[in-house]
Amino acid sequence: LRADAAPSWVWVPELAEPGGRTPLSEDESHYLERVCRARVGDHVSATDGRGNVAELAIVTLGRGAMVEVLRRERVARPRVASIWVGSPEGDRGDWLVEKLAELGVAVFQPVDTERAGWPVTGNRLERWRRLAVAAMRQSRRAYLLEVREPVSMAAAIEGLVPGSSRFVADATGEPAARIAGGEQPVTVAMVGPSPGLSEGEQRALADSGFRSMCLSDSRLRTETAALAWAAWWAAATASS
Amino acid sequence: LRADAAPSWVWVPELAEPGGRTPLSEDESHYLERVCRARVGDHVSATDGRGNVAELAIVTLGRGAMVEVLRRERVARPRVASIWVGSPEGDRGDWLVEKLAELGVAVFQPVDTERAGWPVTGNRLERWRRLAVAAMRQSRRAYLLEVREPVSMAAAIEGLVPGSSRFVADATGEPAARIAGGEQPVTVAMVGPSPGLSEGEQRALADSGFRSMCLSDSRLRTETAALAWAAWWAAATASS
Repeated sequence: LRADAAPSWVWVPELAEPGGRTPLSEDESHYLERVCRARVGDHVSATDGRGNVAELAIVTLGRGAMVEVLRRERVARPRVASIWVGSPEGDRGDWLVEKLAELGVAVFQPVDTERAGWPVTGNRLERWRRLAVAAMRQSRRAYLLEVREPVSMAAAIEGLVPGSSRFVADATGEPAARIAGGEQPVTVAMVGPSPGLSEGEQRALADSGFRSMCLSDSRLRTETAALAWAAWWAAATASS
Repeated sequence: LRADAAPSWVWVPELAEPGGRTPLSEDESHYLERVCRARVGDHVSATDGRGNVAELAIVTLGRGAMVEVLRRERVARPRVASIWVGSPEGDRGDWLVEKLAELGVAVFQPVDTERAGWPVTGNRLERWRRLAVAAMRQSRRAYLLEVREPVSMAAAIEGLVPGSSRFVADATGEPAARIAGGEQPVTVAMVGPSPGLSEGEQRALADSGFRSMCLSDSRLRTETAALAWAAWWAAATASS
């Protein structure tokens, strides 16, 4: 086996046990051969996006490359963040997904609200999921951002994990810098759509234990607030 | 005078004293008439982007609208942040400028480093400055993000404000959540380019009092780190 190829981080959703072989998807095969310029015999790193990371040897290349798993280990994830996001103006979803994935958010949950729905098509979800994979490669993370289908706020509240920390971005809320974050295993944040949340929605969130958090001294666009919240959470988590 | 038009926030770099009249630029005239759908006689809000905010009455519309200043006041800015940013991959500057402006950063200073220079053309700076104005309108801020021409790191260090707080984004640095920020009047942060800072550059920054700060438990793209830092600073400032 040759020395390692260019640094790579391949996504292999179904990672075999050590000694086993796994075919790569067309996207990952292309990434390995064209972007990393890997060759047969090279060792590369991989993750299944669910916390397993592995060292692989390339057995064959081409449209559906084949790899052999050499070593495999599990990366713990003591804390996760889910972000619920109302629809932003225009087409800001793409880079939002990329940045949330880089910052290590676990779940991107688009939420349809009274004043704004997500114009989500299957193609868009598909594209977001590809962007999440690309960002996972880039930041060499062991966990893939889960991009969910849009749901109503009522359904999102219904599905809350018991005992999770809950925040709602709110310009009149408590300053983020005064809030210790990331101690709970699961943290959820809601960021409203560009026309804002209705009073009823604000009440429903407050009744469900969502704490108002102010992220800036001025109003932020939806996607900026979502990103600022994710940065706050990432910083809090990096320290703990 | 009619009741207020749609909420607006116009940029008038040279704001007259109360009672005086000021012509608007073509961009702002267009914004007022087409985006805000304002009419002659409407009252609108404005800033010069340097901390003066005013209530205006529209005297004439058209390509070069004329406004009369009714009231004017000064908004204090106790703390400012400058961000020095190495060149990111691809064309990520546009949204970075928009987000830094929304988060209230004072200065965007592109920095040419040993491993990466900014491919900046006059057009690009021009576009960034327009994006900064649009973001100032959107977030109704009284201060305009200053978009500077790229400089070398040596020149940037040479121009440091004495007594400023200084940080450099660094995956091996001190966790951001453990650092109290925003107390100093001026805070400067350096975010390296995608190929990273050289050892000499890291040393030069350390010698100039830049403190290493870790923003995430994984590596971030340049523009994501810049944004995460700005979000950290905005949160710190919003609380103080």
